[in-house]
Amino acid sequence: MTDELSPRFAEDLVRARVEARLAEAGASEASRAAAIKAMIHASLVGVDSHGVRLTGHYCKMLGGGRLNKNPQLKVESRGAGSAMVHGDDGLGHYAAYRAVEVGIELARQAGVGAVGIKHSSHLGAAGAYALAGAEQGFVTFATTNTDSMVALYDGAQKFHGTNPLAFAAPVPNARPWLLDMATSSIPLNRVLLHRSLDKALPEGVAATADGEPTTDPHEADMLLPLGGVDYGYKGAALAGVATLFSALLTGTTLDPDFIPMYGGDDISTPRNMGHFVLVIDPDKFAGRAVFAAAIGSYLESLRGSRVRDGGRVMAPGDREWEEMDRRKAEGIPVDPDTVRFLGL
Amino acid sequence: MTDELSPRFAEDLVRARVEARLAEAGASEASRAAAIKAMIHASLVGVDSHGVRLTGHYCKMLGGGRLNKNPQLKVESRGAGSAMVHGDDGLGHYAAYRAVEVGIELARQAGVGAVGIKHSSHLGAAGAYALAGAEQGFVTFATTNTDSMVALYDGAQKFHGTNPLAFAAPVPNARPWLLDMATSSIPLNRVLLHRSLDKALPEGVAATADGEPTTDPHEADMLLPLGGVDYGYKGAALAGVATLFSALLTGTTLDPDFIPMYGGDDISTPRNMGHFVLVIDPDKFAGRAVFAAAIGSYLESLRGSRVRDGGRVMAPGDREWEEMDRRKAEGIPVDPDTVRFLGL
Repeated sequence: MTDELSPRFAEDLVRARVEARLAEAGASEASRAAAIKAMIHASLVGVDSHGVRLTGHYCKMLGGGRLNKNPQLKVESRGAGSAMVHGDDGLGHYAAYRAVEVGIELARQAGVGAVGIKHSSHLGAAGAYALAGAEQGFVTFATTNTDSMVALYDGAQKFHGTNPLAFAAPVPNARPWLLDMATSSIPLNRVLLHRSLDKALPEGVAATADGEPTTDPHEADMLLPLGGVDYGYKGAALAGVATLFSALLTGTTLDPDFIPMYGGDDISTPRNMGHFVLVIDPDKFAGRAVFAAAIGSYLESLRGSRVRDGGRVMAPGDREWEEMDRRKAEGIPVDPDTVRFLGL
Repeated sequence: MTDELSPRFAEDLVRARVEARLAEAGASEASRAAAIKAMIHASLVGVDSHGVRLTGHYCKMLGGGRLNKNPQLKVESRGAGSAMVHGDDGLGHYAAYRAVEVGIELARQAGVGAVGIKHSSHLGAAGAYALAGAEQGFVTFATTNTDSMVALYDGAQKFHGTNPLAFAAPVPNARPWLLDMATSSIPLNRVLLHRSLDKALPEGVAATADGEPTTDPHEADMLLPLGGVDYGYKGAALAGVATLFSALLTGTTLDPDFIPMYGGDDISTPRNMGHFVLVIDPDKFAGRAVFAAAIGSYLESLRGSRVRDGGRVMAPGDREWEEMDRRKAEGIPVDPDTVRFLGL
């Protein structure tokens, strides 16, 4: 875990070291380029849990055989607006970025491209793929299901993963509107951080092994869905939306059925993870010019709206772009284990 | 507002009276049939705020000229997977149900149908349209933006509407998986109910006119987004997703720019409300049989999962279907004003 005390390293240096490690581990040039792009995105916008710290994990899984070093992606067209990408059990980033490209090609003609991904693996931050579509001018949605870690509403077991929903939209003369949210209130990393600091958690974000809400990070065994104790049925249902699109529509693995990402003995069996990407061409709806004017006006109205004392109103992505600017200038903070692994 | 003391009336009687009032108000047969279907859906599943109580409001707007009594819908094809429906300023339910049908036609061929709706009006419960797609075998998403009522994270003004996100999916031999959620924690009606009962609100669901969180229903001036005081940036961003799809992509009215639904002087100017419907054919992804087995297995696993003491785990929609069974047996509760208006 990174914190304010973590040493910082220049983006280019970090990138080069990640590249070297993944190459040594045998990942093909194309698949490692995708993984690096996604990890550096996460590390720049401040999502360290999905950033370069995963390099060691991916290298281990490439060595163990869970991940195919030289995946050959297959794109199966299913209709004028739909396709499936077969990830060939390689690094999930590779299949997911390809799905965005396929979605864009479909959307240019059909107005929309819906692309399921199967036989994939961990894809890092889902926002990286929503962003990839938005950077090319398309409204993009990306989601995945993940290992069970979050209770259902009133549940007493880990059921859904932290199942992210990521949306991005192009903004004229500015960086995209970008939402990349877990459907739990906090990530597991936050619990681990509070545990190491012996610091209480906020209310309604974690539960004991019996599903009882707790603020004690040492007692916390699972996360609670967004909405907390009172409205967690909404967060749980949104986690279900991620599973619906990523696993049920693609015929891949359900959250509770995954071979554990970490900590299990099996690092040789592929996990058949699914994801889903939806790409929409604004040109086929209001038209690109009207859309651009509308989102500009919307963001101006949002950023200019009245703020409560001591607060600050931001659009989704604003915090991430600020953090990116800071990290491009001051470097990417890297945790001690990853510093050692990357030889920084 | 309905409560446990509200008198109940048989569905058929209520439906007949709603039909009579809308016919008297001049709504065309097709447009009132759609409105009735959506209102009865909401009244049966327990979403009374969007149920038959709106009959009087719609009749007033049909009389005032805001709503076109005899709308001629236009469907503009935009690509193999995309279309726009022009609602001709009629009852929004009519345009929204048509959009679902258009989406299904597109999805059967293209695998996905993305349909924007413009020049529409209030559509009632967004879940009605997600459900309409699921009942025909399609995974369906429906959303709309609405009048400003919810603060931004750290905001001190009403910005987004309660902007619902509705998803539904077909389940073999059972009623659909159905999520219809506001992106605020509670609806405005809940505040009004607590105000009339002089009863404190839960924490983190409402704010004063200065954006300060309050549990005092008399001080509450706006709603807070899902996620409450700590994680409301997620709910605010999800409200933005509804606006992105419904208003920005369709070129229709932004939440703060709507002529007020209620309480304003102007009941003659159409509001140019937008919505968005997305329909996906499971047959073009995992295939219908694999999808059916997967969602069956997922729901079995969910409903059989461990429950915390005194709790109950449900899938999205389970509560609604139970309420529907109860109301079909015991009748639909109707508030006093609506009892008078419908002559019950």
